[in-house]
Amino acid sequence: MASMDTTRPAHCSRDGWEWTKQQGLRQGVPSIGVIHPPTRLPATTVVFDVIVAGAGYTGLTAARDAALAGLKVLILEARDRIGGRSWSSNIDGYPFEMGGTWVHWGQPHVWREISRYNMRDELEISQSYDGGVNHFTLASRDGNKSMSHPEEDALMESALDKFANVDGNSGRVIMPYPHNAGYNPEVWKYDKLTCRDRIDQIAGTLTADELCGLEGYLLMTSGSTIETMSFFEFLHWWALCGHTYRGCFEYLIKYKFRGGQSSFARKFWDEAVSTGNLSYAFNTPAAQIIDHGLEVEVVSKGGQMFRARRLLSAIPLNVLGTVGFTPELDAERTAAIKIGHLNQCVKVHAEILNKELRTWSGIDYTTSKLVYAFGDGTTPAGNTHIVAFGAMRNHLQPEEDIQETLKSVTALTSMDVDRLVFHNWHKDEYAKGAWFFPGRGFISSYHTALRARHGSIIFANSDWAVGWRSFIDGAIEEGTRAALEVIQELRKGKSNL
Amino acid sequence: MASMDTTRPAHCSRDGWEWTKQQGLRQGVPSIGVIHPPTRLPATTVVFDVIVAGAGYTGLTAARDAALAGLKVLILEARDRIGGRSWSSNIDGYPFEMGGTWVHWGQPHVWREISRYNMRDELEISQSYDGGVNHFTLASRDGNKSMSHPEEDALMESALDKFANVDGNSGRVIMPYPHNAGYNPEVWKYDKLTCRDRIDQIAGTLTADELCGLEGYLLMTSGSTIETMSFFEFLHWWALCGHTYRGCFEYLIKYKFRGGQSSFARKFWDEAVSTGNLSYAFNTPAAQIIDHGLEVEVVSKGGQMFRARRLLSAIPLNVLGTVGFTPELDAERTAAIKIGHLNQCVKVHAEILNKELRTWSGIDYTTSKLVYAFGDGTTPAGNTHIVAFGAMRNHLQPEEDIQETLKSVTALTSMDVDRLVFHNWHKDEYAKGAWFFPGRGFISSYHTALRARHGSIIFANSDWAVGWRSFIDGAIEEGTRAALEVIQELRKGKSNL
Repeated sequence: MASMDTTRPAHCSRDGWEWTKQQGLRQGVPSIGVIHPPTRLPATTVVFDVIVAGAGYTGLTAARDAALAGLKVLILEARDRIGGRSWSSNIDGYPFEMGGTWVHWGQPHVWREISRYNMRDELEISQSYDGGVNHFTLASRDGNKSMSHPEEDALMESALDKFANVDGNSGRVIMPYPHNAGYNPEVWKYDKLTCRDRIDQIAGTLTADELCGLEGYLLMTSGSTIETMSFFEFLHWWALCGHTYRGCFEYLIKYKFRGGQSSFARKFWDEAVSTGNLSYAFNTPAAQIIDHGLEVEVVSKGGQMFRARRLLSAIPLNVLGTVGFTPELDAERTAAIKIGHLNQCVKVHAEILNKELRTWSGIDYTTSKLVYAFGDGTTPAGNTHIVAFGAMRNHLQPEEDIQETLKSVTALTSMDVDRLVFHNWHKDEYAKGAWFFPGRGFISSYHTALRARHGSIIFANSDWAVGWRSFIDGAIEEGTRAALEVIQELRKGKSNL
Repeated sequence: MASMDTTRPAHCSRDGWEWTKQQGLRQGVPSIGVIHPPTRLPATTVVFDVIVAGAGYTGLTAARDAALAGLKVLILEARDRIGGRSWSSNIDGYPFEMGGTWVHWGQPHVWREISRYNMRDELEISQSYDGGVNHFTLASRDGNKSMSHPEEDALMESALDKFANVDGNSGRVIMPYPHNAGYNPEVWKYDKLTCRDRIDQIAGTLTADELCGLEGYLLMTSGSTIETMSFFEFLHWWALCGHTYRGCFEYLIKYKFRGGQSSFARKFWDEAVSTGNLSYAFNTPAAQIIDHGLEVEVVSKGGQMFRARRLLSAIPLNVLGTVGFTPELDAERTAAIKIGHLNQCVKVHAEILNKELRTWSGIDYTTSKLVYAFGDGTTPAGNTHIVAFGAMRNHLQPEEDIQETLKSVTALTSMDVDRLVFHNWHKDEYAKGAWFFPGRGFISSYHTALRARHGSIIFANSDWAVGWRSFIDGAIEEGTRAALEVIQELRKGKSNL
């Protein structure tokens, strides 16, 4: 079926898939996030100040901050590239976003970096409402409907507001500070509900179209199922987006990097390298992490050993269970790791010949395995780029049966597909899912435990960020926190042991 | 009239004024922003990597980042305290904000720091709508009106939206990216208008109450006059606040530090000191800055001389003209300095015995020299804290005639004043005004020139920030930018000369 390209050039990642009419399915796509040569280590064995396990935005931020502060840093990364669950592949002059994509100035950690790297002018808007079909398709249980984008907005605003409006003020009373979500302790009762539970509470108030739009939207946010996803976590997203659907649209899916996410990640990387304090080894997944007290030892799957005074684990929640820790992790964190998060989002890019669909969007809750899609750009060839999202409900493994994937794409609306690009996050052993989305009760039970340190090991990941948890912003928040902790500890020359 | 307290304790600043019924008017108020002892200099003469002139948030951020990166930093500050135009005085256990006050997670640079210093839980909300009079007073040209706060919000939303809605979409088309204000070049035509010009365009659509509320609001934002303030700059604020009055309220005057601004500024300071790379001299205003090429020399007003490889001037626009530069500054920057900005906001705090006014707000465009006021807190003594703003129109110098100041406060609404606290920014020789607010054409003409460097001198200040210009956020933005520039230059070992 798929052929592994063994002659792949240095800038090509093993991650990701591309299918074209001409060449069929191929594994591995190019990315400026691939670092070559993949290893830079000192000639002799040294004890680093800090080893950062993982080169997603958390690890990149932490490594950069620590290296800037003069610490000797080693990044160990399982993959052949930086960026973790956010990376872009530039194919024929067009960046396809394989994971995390959109940014906004209301995401404070992201924006501080965009400002610092003077990239404010490097954003563009995904959607277009200029010409073409300029409509939204809702494939609901009672048939396909076409409506204008303002009608789409009105439908979604109404549906989402009914869903989130638990306090008569669109959630502003129950969660006034999104960066301190439990400020009103009354909010925690909503972590006992799944989104299905909440829909059941308001079912009588929703029209059939609203219910369909809402369910499609919820599946897009969680990549899971409505029966499992936490209503509290959705309220957190809602509050982060200013308690409006307009906010959800603007913060979550509107502004992206003209040059792709990897152009942003490279800024962190290049700055960290420029300090002269960064060593690194790609293709080096951690297998064992042993806290000896004054030093932490990391043994890679390939048997290499590295030592440092502190270890900063930027390993995602769903992957932590594949790494051995000595001493053993505490019972709460172990339980949280065992449960994991739910998000198995399927994101498929389609380059299509239909120019008129540049202004299209759609939700399909019935026929397609892809639930939510919209025109996301125009390629240099003049084709339309459609991005489509699927979830755990009616799950799709895009590379396993490319005809079924094509069928799911074209079921959304009629289109002539020239190329597909995607990353199967579900099968990715270093992610085991997409962005964090928890089941009910998970945050109430485990958020504090996941943020705690373990001897000389600090755990940092967007999966347990405080603010924009699950987002690139949360990753930078966590990397910033962890780096500061390590820098201050090592400066004081104190050990916590 | 006023007596200078020569026995002032070490934590008391020369800045600020306090008046009480019991003790009358006194100059100087306590602040945790006062650094004691005020000087820490190396025993022998050294050439620093960078001298940072000014210890407001720009200078604090730059000095901290540079010191963290291992550079040898000297802060020179004219005052006896950190914080510049944002500082708090804790009096009888209550923080009075003498300048910049409110913060929000939509201010990315501020929020990154609040998150990094783990101060997310240290915010409180200024306004209360619980009990008391719970109303808004509008003293318009045709008499006093009392309305509920929801009525106030509806009035202001209507007035401000009419004012800003130049494109049929509340300004979202003309300024879609507030952090790239000129993204739609059509917007620049609005920098040719004053706010009076814009009011004239829409005058027929405003009710008398809306006009009054709008004018009061505009004077509060600019501290100047409606006839001089740039409409473009107001549009920029509006866009930053999400193009809604609700946003203006939430971003601009809602959330403040429970411990006062100086509790935030101290975090930057303490971290910079902890690096071991920071020297400093308070009470040391710069008089001459001489760029010798490989080194920059600063001569203080007291005749002390300091040298560094780079100078980072965090001196505000309205003060730059008091410093001599060699070589001379370019013609454009010199012209901008000569024009300056307009903001001569008068901010007066009143501690009053009227508990019921905790839930009051008011705009007075007729009888009082203070235009806009609201209940801002409750002091430990159980009194209400009212904050009031005046502008250049009908200007007040609060300490010159305390009876007139009291009259202006009580003209807003009847109240029994126990204490007044304020900082006269107009007479402050190291500020010469409050936050930056420009006249028409200023940003179009001078923004680029103000951001340019001058040999080994880098100019950084919120007054010419890109995003939240005039705000604490803009100051941190600028300090971040300047520090990165210096760090990268000195790391490369290259000189720009």
